[in-house]
Amino acid sequence: MSAYEELLTRLKDIDLIRQIGSLLSWDQEVLMPPKAAPLRAEQLAWISKTAHERLTDARIGEILDEIESNDDMDEITSANIRLAREAFDRATKLPTEFVEEMAKHRSRALISWTEAREKDDFSIFRDDLEIAIGHARMKADFYLYESGLTVERLDPLFSGLRENVAPLIKEVVEKDEGPDLSWVTESTWSQKAQEELSQSVSEAIGFDFEAGRRDLSTHPFCGGPNPDDVRWTTRYSEEDPFGSLFGSMHETGHGTYEQGRPRDLDFQPAGKANGLGIHESQSRLWENQIGRSREFCEWSIPLWRKFFPENMDGVSAEQLWQAVNLVKPGLIRVDADEATYNLHIMIRYEIEKQLIAGEIDVDDLPDAWDEMYNEYLGIRAPNRTLGVLQDIHWSMGAIGYFPTYTLGNLYAAQLLESARNDLPEHDTQIREGDFFPLLKWMRDNVHSRGSVLEPAELIKEATGQDPSPDAFIRYLGSKVERLYGVSA
Amino acid sequence: MSAYEELLTRLKDIDLIRQIGSLLSWDQEVLMPPKAAPLRAEQLAWISKTAHERLTDARIGEILDEIESNDDMDEITSANIRLAREAFDRATKLPTEFVEEMAKHRSRALISWTEAREKDDFSIFRDDLEIAIGHARMKADFYLYESGLTVERLDPLFSGLRENVAPLIKEVVEKDEGPDLSWVTESTWSQKAQEELSQSVSEAIGFDFEAGRRDLSTHPFCGGPNPDDVRWTTRYSEEDPFGSLFGSMHETGHGTYEQGRPRDLDFQPAGKANGLGIHESQSRLWENQIGRSREFCEWSIPLWRKFFPENMDGVSAEQLWQAVNLVKPGLIRVDADEATYNLHIMIRYEIEKQLIAGEIDVDDLPDAWDEMYNEYLGIRAPNRTLGVLQDIHWSMGAIGYFPTYTLGNLYAAQLLESARNDLPEHDTQIREGDFFPLLKWMRDNVHSRGSVLEPAELIKEATGQDPSPDAFIRYLGSKVERLYGVSA
Repeated sequence: MSAYEELLTRLKDIDLIRQIGSLLSWDQEVLMPPKAAPLRAEQLAWISKTAHERLTDARIGEILDEIESNDDMDEITSANIRLAREAFDRATKLPTEFVEEMAKHRSRALISWTEAREKDDFSIFRDDLEIAIGHARMKADFYLYESGLTVERLDPLFSGLRENVAPLIKEVVEKDEGPDLSWVTESTWSQKAQEELSQSVSEAIGFDFEAGRRDLSTHPFCGGPNPDDVRWTTRYSEEDPFGSLFGSMHETGHGTYEQGRPRDLDFQPAGKANGLGIHESQSRLWENQIGRSREFCEWSIPLWRKFFPENMDGVSAEQLWQAVNLVKPGLIRVDADEATYNLHIMIRYEIEKQLIAGEIDVDDLPDAWDEMYNEYLGIRAPNRTLGVLQDIHWSMGAIGYFPTYTLGNLYAAQLLESARNDLPEHDTQIREGDFFPLLKWMRDNVHSRGSVLEPAELIKEATGQDPSPDAFIRYLGSKVERLYGVSA
Repeated sequence: MSAYEELLTRLKDIDLIRQIGSLLSWDQEVLMPPKAAPLRAEQLAWISKTAHERLTDARIGEILDEIESNDDMDEITSANIRLAREAFDRATKLPTEFVEEMAKHRSRALISWTEAREKDDFSIFRDDLEIAIGHARMKADFYLYESGLTVERLDPLFSGLRENVAPLIKEVVEKDEGPDLSWVTESTWSQKAQEELSQSVSEAIGFDFEAGRRDLSTHPFCGGPNPDDVRWTTRYSEEDPFGSLFGSMHETGHGTYEQGRPRDLDFQPAGKANGLGIHESQSRLWENQIGRSREFCEWSIPLWRKFFPENMDGVSAEQLWQAVNLVKPGLIRVDADEATYNLHIMIRYEIEKQLIAGEIDVDDLPDAWDEMYNEYLGIRAPNRTLGVLQDIHWSMGAIGYFPTYTLGNLYAAQLLESARNDLPEHDTQIREGDFFPLLKWMRDNVHSRGSVLEPAELIKEATGQDPSPDAFIRYLGSKVERLYGVSA
């Protein structure tokens, strides 16, 4: 066995451990009986520890040292070596005690964050947040949720949004003209019909239910062990039919990406999905760019009428399109519309940078948060729960994670612009529910490329352009102009 | 850390791996999408290999050698050492290549058995069965599915059944008088109502649904990772309401045993459930001894009427009792009634002994099977699928497993006889649906004793008698006399 083959064997072993861990986590969220929580935590800790032990095996370092000196590697081999090196360095740089301390702190912080939210009292979470920020500073991989991602690359993307999207929203708010949504809000939307609509749309997009499942969970997510077993979840509210549909399309986007990974690279780093930003581009593409398009509304209105004959009586595709594209600044990120969403992220990104740099103190954070909401969205939270305490991320130590959501939106717009150039019949195809050409374009240009390239290189290869906010700004501007008759 | 503590730490590690494997297996049977099968097999193989590697670590042998010389051990410590030694010896005796070869053969044999059944052609399975028998011969643990179990101990149990039960069934068949079952066979039994009945009965018995689940699967089983997460399944036929109810009671029996394990011995061999025969005693107790008793029928008839108001109109507890106790020789083991069931097992036990001893050739097996069915049950299979190909066990290499089913029946009768001596109000309690005293008796005398004693010792401790077929023969004889007016 060559050194490279030995490396792949070792990586396969680690990947199998993680696949198993993914199933345990999925089950924990979806099915597990309540009393099982403590022993499930032990099982998951065993998985983490075992994967960490195997990844930090000194032999992996030796093999990497040996192979890296070889400068005659093909594209796949270099990607595997590069990604294995990144993972090995990240795992070995962090002392095991620090990893354990972070894991324990995460459990404590999750509890204090939950209590702080319940009691609307930031001070309960304050100390744990400060520790989490300290950990984030110590972690060399700050702002490395996406491979190769740095503040230098992120700042220009966000400043593009700040300069273009913020004024556009201001125009919409000042004009103060929205569609009549009484047909949505004054009805009850049966859960069973929502499930059927979600299932039909996910099947139409091309999610393979022979290699995956749809289930119910409190927090929607896409998980599962591998491309043959992709499991996404959604939740339902009988007061609002859009949450489950667009949630389902979002997770279907993640799911089709997983199912489209290059299967000849199973168990290899180069065969993995390419970072959180690219992953989010696939979910946002189907949720927003396609799901909230006029063409999609035209295709889906017969489905809506089939599953909700009474609710949809007399509702046109135009009304549906207006309803799913309502622009209205709100306090809660997860409820935000497509136009305001990225401003929520921008605020978090600015705050995270200042916290890490020590330019803002934890005690000043809650008011700083409210100030920024007032500045960019023109609204102010009446309490901490609707303000700084709304997201779980910081309690989980996920500092620097939020920007991947905005990257996903920008990448989605940029990828769709390119896809449309290659697919002249795109609008007609969406109107007819023929999603295969677009899915195939994503399979060919994104999914099947795995992690062979760095994310920014992948976007450049697929679209001919470096990552940029321009396509998103064009897309949003044009849509808001059609909907509200305003432009920035 | 003392050598004993190190041993427990290592055993905990192995137990966690097995807990994880149990969840993967449960998911495979209940939920997994079909295309996930090949990678799930890799995950499960990883689990087996990793558990095997850790169990065969030479350090475990060293520790055992060191501790075993200590003759001043308490009951728990000796049990842990004894069981760890058994597991270590069994694992190290089998070379890893042999274990792998057996695992691969199991996959092949399962396929050829399935095909042989579909095409009703024994020759397709013949070669793989021959290999499985060869493996069983090579495995030192033949007839060791239950600790300490040998042919010397089994033969007297089966001869007791042969001498007493076979003639009893002959009497019933010759008398040829059965109850009128038209109220069962001429109705449709809604699946939803069957689910509600199963759930109600399982809750009444005392299964803790905060620490477990009920699901649907093709092959009913009880699994799940640990006593806080016990998962049992059942299946439903709208033509027959008894299969799901008694299946549910059977799995509930297994489930309450798992939930009743001594929690201070979590992760220790002495804290495990005590072998397959004792496990089966708990399932058979609730399924047959309780579930098919006259008192249980009296308690449950209002539930039957609640969930099946039309089907049960005018049906009395006496009619229900007669219906669930029909004695009728049939070809299929899993459909057999309580009286004939053990003869199915006895036939398999005799055949396995002859196969292993080389007294019967694989090619002669199908006809030998049919001959024995004719001799003991007076019926002959019209084809191989209803004959020798009916059970999955041999294709999975489980040769020597069947007798544990009969042991379960014998132990159940013996345990209940003792419990009734301690619980003078037993009949009244069952008639009133107060199952707690009996469950508590099992908790105190069986469940909480884990694997501290060998199975036969546990039976002796709980009942004051060595394992024997006598209680079962008395129980069955008395019931058949009440039902059919015959005695052997």
